[in-house]
Formats: sequence, structure tokens, C-alpha cells
Amino acid sequence: MNSASTSNLTDRLAALRRDVEAALARVLDRLDAPPAITAPLAYALQGPGKRLRPCLTLAAAESVADRLGLTVEHAHALAMPAACAVEMIHTYSLVHDDLPAMDNDDLRRGRPTTHVVHGEGMAILAGDGLLTDAFRVLAEAPSSAVDQAAPVAPAERRLEAVRLLAEAAGSRGMVGGQAIDLAAVGAGASLDAASLADMHARKTGALIRAACVLGAVMTGAPAREREAIDRYAAELGLAFQIVDDILDVEGSAEALGKTAGKDAAAGKPTYPALYGLDESKAMAAACIRRAHEALDAVEIGGLLHDIADWSLTRTS
Amino acid sequence: MNSASTSNLTDRLAALRRDVEAALARVLDRLDAPPAITAPLAYALQGPGKRLRPCLTLAAAESVADRLGLTVEHAHALAMPAACAVEMIHTYSLVHDDLPAMDNDDLRRGRPTTHVVHGEGMAILAGDGLLTDAFRVLAEAPSSAVDQAAPVAPAERRLEAVRLLAEAAGSRGMVGGQAIDLAAVGAGASLDAASLADMHARKTGALIRAACVLGAVMTGAPAREREAIDRYAAELGLAFQIVDDILDVEGSAEALGKTAGKDAAAGKPTYPALYGLDESKAMAAACIRRAHEALDAVEIGGLLHDIADWSLTRTS
Repeated sequence: MNSASTSNLTDRLAALRRDVEAALARVLDRLDAPPAITAPLAYALQGPGKRLRPCLTLAAAESVADRLGLTVEHAHALAMPAACAVEMIHTYSLVHDDLPAMDNDDLRRGRPTTHVVHGEGMAILAGDGLLTDAFRVLAEAPSSAVDQAAPVAPAERRLEAVRLLAEAAGSRGMVGGQAIDLAAVGAGASLDAASLADMHARKTGALIRAACVLGAVMTGAPAREREAIDRYAAELGLAFQIVDDILDVEGSAEALGKTAGKDAAAGKPTYPALYGLDESKAMAAACIRRAHEALDAVEIGGLLHDIADWSLTRTS
Repeated sequence: MNSASTSNLTDRLAALRRDVEAALARVLDRLDAPPAITAPLAYALQGPGKRLRPCLTLAAAESVADRLGLTVEHAHALAMPAACAVEMIHTYSLVHDDLPAMDNDDLRRGRPTTHVVHGEGMAILAGDGLLTDAFRVLAEAPSSAVDQAAPVAPAERRLEAVRLLAEAAGSRGMVGGQAIDLAAVGAGASLDAASLADMHARKTGALIRAACVLGAVMTGAPAREREAIDRYAAELGLAFQIVDDILDVEGSAEALGKTAGKDAAAGKPTYPALYGLDESKAMAAACIRRAHEALDAVEIGGLLHDIADWSLTRTS
């Protein structure tokens, strides 16, 4: 990717991120929750994140807009409740993951973590609230939670989005992956390559896949496009995890906004530890090649491709 | 209520509880989650609870069955995914509430709490899993999660159930009430009567209301019956909280299956502390009178009435 398209991608992601953050601010307003929970919840949600997952939801929605006869704006509007729900679930997972009983992290996105600022009990509750409210946003949005004037996906699509998101985030997906990770650390055991891949597919891969697929579901994309986007997302998710592990070795705390070298110090299994740095980089690049191929097979172009390329070169 | 009807109620609740527990066992099986999370999740879910909330869901469904032209069995089957989801959310809230950073309770339903057995991190994850999987059960059930042969409520009803349950359990409801409670304890402040009522309406009332209303929603009850059941449930929920506070003063740890006198010892505001024991008992009885009136106005009889009467005389 040359620097012109990098700059173009940066601008487009920044525009999507602004849209997502505006929608999340409306969600917070309309939750109508008591101040005791709104404060820690807003603190967690308003941290300076990349908003990668909701941007993927919007990018997937826009990738099928043309063939569905939708404008890009219409596709984004249909998918926005799902984008917000995905980001709320990602944010809750970070809040709970940072707790002393889990990863015990004091620094996240360059700021003190939620439990450091609001206390452990409130951080547990803020995470619980974000997780629960994510499903509320999917079920009631956009009529009241996100934007009253926005077009609404039919009930069948929204229920399917609830089902996919709950499966990806729940015991079979993200929570199951975190439990495998926690059990392995607790036992002082290191996972073998297959178990490491399974753990990551659940812990981070499942939500990235759901983020992308929900963009297709909310716009009403046919099965062929939806499955291609799912294959793309599975490859992107794995590449993302491998690059995370590489950055944990090579990156600086300043760029990452969190403690670097922490996984290695904790004796956690990582791709560089298992395969070495060079082989890990080659594995990530192969994932991204397969991600492009999945989209090419159904003639999807544009932003999803650019995000895949960026995922290899990112520094945070 | 005479002893014959008490015994009849006990038998009927026991039968509903067995149905709910069988359905929950099927849910656990079909989650297809890794063993690392299934073990703590099953431990939490399979404790010897009263299963009051899912029984309320089934009782509400059966209360409108006849006028909807449904058999009781059909009404129960339509409502069972909601009953399971409600119990999973209730169970998650107990697991998180018992954590050291929250109420720090070692004993629940007569057994060591989940974090005592499986560790704090796993208890946080088990709660997160139960909460997330509750929405999965509502969205995919009963086709795959509960019973493949059972009748399925239409997508609109199930999405409405997701919306109601998420609002009742989330930041505006249960989680918000817990945050108000935690903030008041942390500040060493005692809540006034209005704030105490608001806190309980969110913390325990909202889920009891949702439990009942979901029985009406899943069977497709008209608005008039649904609203009557909601009014019934609001009164029942308040009576339940007042009786809980009374039992915390008068009850024994053996009957309660948890530490007695704990709220008073923690300086938590309670109805007996605010109003005295006699006035608290009169308030609970008045709630139950209004609960009966709400049902009588739409000519709903049967089990919901009996549960209301039982709620005043229970000892645990």
C-alpha cells in the first residue's frame, strides 16, 4: 500500500470512528441509567480507542451496499446499532480483563484502567452494564437507542445479530477463550500450537468475526457474501492476534498505550515464542493474503481490503 | 391460604422447578463451550435455588394460555427459553454480587460461592458467560438451545423479550440498582425511603417484573393482560424485597442458606430499619393485596395468586 492510500485509509477510518463515537454518545444519553453507573460506564466507553471492531461492522455493511441497492449512508445506518453493540462488548471485555483477579492491568489506552479510577466493584458493574446494554441497543435500536430518524433493520435480522453476537461473546466464544487462557496461566502450563490457535480464535477472533458478519446481517446481505466476509474476518482476526504478539515483543508502551512485554513476562504463550519473530510475520502475511482472496471470490473491494493491509503495518 | 392449597402450591412449584432445571441442563449441554468455563458455569447454575423467577415466567405464560387458545404445555414451551434466560441472568448477578469486591459472601444457597470454589477470575468469567449466553438462549431457542421439538415464538416476540430483559438487567435496571447500593455503602451514606425504593425497584424489582412480563410476551398475550401482569409483578417484587429484609432480621442462616443479619451488620439500609418490623410486614401485605387486584381486574386466576400469598409466608 503506498502512502497516498494509507493516508486515505487513515482519513476514512477516522470518519467512521467519529460516526461510531457520536452514536455511542447518543446510546449513553438514552440509556437513562442512574449516575452511579453512568460515570464508570462512560469512562470505560469514552477512552481513546481505535474503534476497530465497529469500523469493521460499518466497512462490511458498506462493502455490500451497492449490490443491495443501498447507499453507503443507508447501509451504515442499518449497521450502526450492531457497531455500537460490538464496541460496548469489546469495551466490557477490556474492563473485566484488566481487573486484579484477571490480568491486573493499571494502564489501558494510555489511561488508568476503570477499576483504578472507580474501584473494583464499580468496574465489575460497568462491565456487566455495557455487556447487557449492548443487547438492549441491538434489540431496540435505532428507534430509541441510537437515532430516531434512522432506518431500522427488520426484527429477524436484529434477532440473528443478537444470536451471533451472544454466541461470539459468550461461553463458546470470547468468555470461553479467556477461561482457557486463565486456566493455563493458573496451572503454569503453556498451550501447544493447536490450543493456542483455539484459544485466540475464541478470545479475540470470535468477536472480530461477529463484528464483520453483523455488518452483512444488518444490511441483509445474501449468504454467499456473508460467508466470504466471515472467512475474511477469521483470517483478519488471526493476523491481528499474531501482530499483537509481535508488537508485545517489538512495540513500545508509548505506542501501545499499555504495558509492553507483559505477555512474555507473564509466561503467556505467544506466536513469537512458539514460532519466532520472522515466521510469525510470515504467518500474519499469509492470513492477510487469504483474507483478500475471500473477498475477491465474491468481488468485494474497497475498505475491508485496506484495513487488512493496514493490520500488518500497524504499530499500535 | 390453608394447608391444602399450600401443599398444592408446593407441588406445582416443584414440578415447574424440575422442568426449568431440565431445560437448563439442556442449555448447558448445547452451549458447546470449552470445559474451562463449563465447570464454573455449571457449578453456579446448578446450585439448589428456588428458581422463583423462571417459575414466575412459566406461571405468567400459563395464566394467559386459556384465553390465547393454548394448552398449558404449549404456553410453557413458548416461554421456556425466556424462563432459562431469566434464571441465567439471576444466577450471574448472584455470582458477581458475592465477589470480594462486591458483597464478599462465602456462602450462597447453602454452598461455598463460585469464587471460593473456582477462584475470582473464573467467577467473573462464569458470570459474564451466563449473562451473555442468556441472550443466546433467547435468540436461538428453542430450535437448538433448549428443545428442538418445541414450538418457537416468532422473531418479533423474541426480540421484544431481548429488549425487555436487557433493559431490566442492564444499567437502567439491576446493574444500576447495584451501583446505587455500592455507591451508598462506599460513601457510608444511608439512603432515604424514596432512594431505597428506587434502588430496590432496579436491583431486584426490574428482573422480577421482566420474568413475569416475558411469560406474557413469549405467549403473545394482549397489552391489557401484559400490563396487568406487569403491575402484579411490580407489587410482588417490592413485597419480596421487604420480606427479604425481614428474614434478614428474623431468619436463620440454616433456612436462608446464606449469612443472616448481614445487611444490618453492613449498615445497609433495610425496610425494618427504616419502618420497624410491624410496619414492614404491613407494607408487604399491602403490596400483595394490590398484586391480587391487578390480576383480578383482567380475570387472571391461579398460580400467580398462590405465589403472591406464599411470598408473605415464606421462611427462606
